[in-house]
Amino acid sequence: MGIRDYFPIWEKLTLSQQERLTACAVNKCFKKGTILSNGTADCTGLLLIQTGRLRAYILSEEGREITIYRLLDMDMCLFSASCLMNSIRCDIMVEAEKDSTVWVIPAEVYKEIMEESVAAANYTNEVMASRFSDVMWLMEQIMWKSLDKRVASFLMEEAALEDTARLRLTHEGIAHHLGTHREVITRMLRYFQSEGMVKLSRGVVELIDQPRLQKLYEGNKM
Amino acid sequence: MGIRDYFPIWEKLTLSQQERLTACAVNKCFKKGTILSNGTADCTGLLLIQTGRLRAYILSEEGREITIYRLLDMDMCLFSASCLMNSIRCDIMVEAEKDSTVWVIPAEVYKEIMEESVAAANYTNEVMASRFSDVMWLMEQIMWKSLDKRVASFLMEEAALEDTARLRLTHEGIAHHLGTHREVITRMLRYFQSEGMVKLSRGVVELIDQPRLQKLYEGNKM
Repeated sequence: MGIRDYFPIWEKLTLSQQERLTACAVNKCFKKGTILSNGTADCTGLLLIQTGRLRAYILSEEGREITIYRLLDMDMCLFSASCLMNSIRCDIMVEAEKDSTVWVIPAEVYKEIMEESVAAANYTNEVMASRFSDVMWLMEQIMWKSLDKRVASFLMEEAALEDTARLRLTHEGIAHHLGTHREVITRMLRYFQSEGMVKLSRGVVELIDQPRLQKLYEGNKM
Repeated sequence: MGIRDYFPIWEKLTLSQQERLTACAVNKCFKKGTILSNGTADCTGLLLIQTGRLRAYILSEEGREITIYRLLDMDMCLFSASCLMNSIRCDIMVEAEKDSTVWVIPAEVYKEIMEESVAAANYTNEVMASRFSDVMWLMEQIMWKSLDKRVASFLMEEAALEDTARLRLTHEGIAHHLGTHREVITRMLRYFQSEGMVKLSRGVVELIDQPRLQKLYEGNKM
């Protein structure tokens, strides 16, 4: 399978544009835990995910993290190519959350195509709007949902992504995703356990009452 | 002055595109306090600011607000035209923060132009990336800056926008901007007053020590 099978608007590109992508995009494998992009400092290129999972997050001066979105098969990461647009002024880190195979498209090649092709430019607009909407959703969560709801929501999302109720997660890891401290997460998970919603063992959180976690997350909407 | 003098990439449009914009964009005045857009429910159109100031914010179920960005002369608001893109899934409210004169461009007209013109599509990309960066900045503030720093930063920003150290602001109003409660803001402003940084009177916050507010905001960077 080549990049043509993964690039969403392939058919709308000209032959010359297709040839440039085929010639310049590099298929790379990244081990779980590899940092693919370090924010505006480097301009790694656009990342088009073939298999695996990437995580985009921001990092505070004190080293706290918060996950802003995940990228799955056929998703495209723009913020690893901050030199693509003048108006990208935010530092977004990207790491491989699983072993991943990714097409890396050089920013200058994509930029050239985006300046020629109205289809590519508008596809980029849709990607950007989609990420913007993800971030707005997250902002609402942070501002207006209490942490118990955010932890419940995170566990349910993980269970869906991994397709299992037995999640390999450390308390430290959950804290990183949610921008808080390990101790806070440990306290919350113990509360969930005492309520019979999860079962904790070393490096594992098992969801044993998903309907209640769901209900907790949805809160007063029920 | 017509829309040609305010639309940023006018010269890059074809004559036909320019004619459609001139014919379809409506110049409207909005009194301070008017809600121009209510999120995804309506699709007001793109707003191009001639004079005045708009405020984009989100609203919780309980009626709490948080300001996400401001729009000044020649800025363009995309999120008042949520039907422009499928991927816009967030509800952003837009209100006139001052009496404002605005060009309202119907979403379907802009969409048509964006699908024809690579310049318009890429301009839209830059606007989107710029708003995305604003929101990421705000997220970092919320996650990692304490409220005293956020209030100091907000007051300094207002002073710059209004070009005065004597700000007409209610505590309720500041709370709305920052997504918190009036009581919390009142307590913080009284603390600032006791420290000699501001002077409070009815409906007015006067900044009397801007260098210290600046220093407070910048925190341990100093």
